[in-house]
Amino acid sequence: MPARQGTLYLIPVPLDDHGISEIAPETIGILSGLRYIIAEKAKTARKWIKILVPGIVLQDMTIYEMDKHHPDKTDPDWFVPLINGVDVGLMSEAGSPGIADPGAIIVNEAHRRDIPIRSLSGPSSITMALMGSGMNGQSFAFHGYLPQSSGELTRRLQQLERQAIQHQQAQIFIETPYRNLQMLEACLKSLHSDTRLGISAGLQSSNPLQKTRSIGEWKRLKDHNWLHLPAVFIIG
Amino acid sequence: MPARQGTLYLIPVPLDDHGISEIAPETIGILSGLRYIIAEKAKTARKWIKILVPGIVLQDMTIYEMDKHHPDKTDPDWFVPLINGVDVGLMSEAGSPGIADPGAIIVNEAHRRDIPIRSLSGPSSITMALMGSGMNGQSFAFHGYLPQSSGELTRRLQQLERQAIQHQQAQIFIETPYRNLQMLEACLKSLHSDTRLGISAGLQSSNPLQKTRSIGEWKRLKDHNWLHLPAVFIIG
Repeated sequence: MPARQGTLYLIPVPLDDHGISEIAPETIGILSGLRYIIAEKAKTARKWIKILVPGIVLQDMTIYEMDKHHPDKTDPDWFVPLINGVDVGLMSEAGSPGIADPGAIIVNEAHRRDIPIRSLSGPSSITMALMGSGMNGQSFAFHGYLPQSSGELTRRLQQLERQAIQHQQAQIFIETPYRNLQMLEACLKSLHSDTRLGISAGLQSSNPLQKTRSIGEWKRLKDHNWLHLPAVFIIG
Repeated sequence: MPARQGTLYLIPVPLDDHGISEIAPETIGILSGLRYIIAEKAKTARKWIKILVPGIVLQDMTIYEMDKHHPDKTDPDWFVPLINGVDVGLMSEAGSPGIADPGAIIVNEAHRRDIPIRSLSGPSSITMALMGSGMNGQSFAFHGYLPQSSGELTRRLQQLERQAIQHQQAQIFIETPYRNLQMLEACLKSLHSDTRLGISAGLQSSNPLQKTRSIGEWKRLKDHNWLHLPAVFIIG
């Protein structure tokens, strides 16, 4: 065993093709030096690496892909370079690994093996949505995806609304584009007229939306050309 | 009134002097073009602007300082450039504005005035701590500072531990360096031996720590040379 283990670097990637210049020089520098990557999806990782480090020879890199059918499984092979003193990068499909993705399982295993870990700063749709919402950034909760069935969704939204008011805590959740309209309608139907709803959609795309209005005001807005974009919703 | 209002840009700054290269070219580019900044503290804003945009003439810039005695107050003057079509930046003391700082009040007022808002991606100690903790990044809550009195702190920590287990939700909080030892001791005393505690301290400093261990393991660790650094704690 070498005197020093490698470091597991947590590498943020853009949220959209327009976000390339929102990746920091430190991240590009570290990525340039890596030969091993653990990725949520190898194809996407290769795409970002090629864009972010144009000179890189992808054939020299080993990219381990997480098993999407068993996102709670790690492969001991992935940690062999680290044990041998070689740095490894962890990459998500979009944004920062370990936030709203299955990356935590890798970081957790690295801690268990006493491997040094370094988070690099970069895009996170959750963080950017909260910043731009004007909601309480001193107390907030993120819930991932909400239930899909209409009755359950209404109950959950009303529960989050109560939590937001009782604890002055911003309540954050996400939705996939093809269910955005359904989610917006559920919010407009289930929440009080003066409850605030913040929506960030298509962050780092060519036409991002960041808007916070009361439910009453959202009901009067007609221009919903963000509905086809990945969206973060915040109640507060 | 001009046809188009200015944009309120949310400008992330480093968490520490060593984090300069973790600021993205997009942020530097936008900051270079701004002449108006709303800052949590003007002195810190000037320091970061000078470091991030070395050629800038600070005398040409107007920096509005938020009133630390009335953090919930905004000044209508701050919004005059925006109304006149001129962009304005919002800056925090460290990291991303609107997260764990009083910046939300400004963003909120901008939404009320229908001013376009754009979050830029960059350092956030909360996000980076969560990424590096291996805790559940698909469900988490941030609580800011916990109570200081020993009895209240114990009760709060045990409540967060119950929430973490019941809802599989990572519980995040922060502490100032001079109370880190007290907080660590409170965690070791109040929490179950197998509860996991993640600590990220001195992120973007020359000697950052990112470590997640069970309370039982933390009790056996002797090397606590991170206690003088700003720290983020996560229970999960």
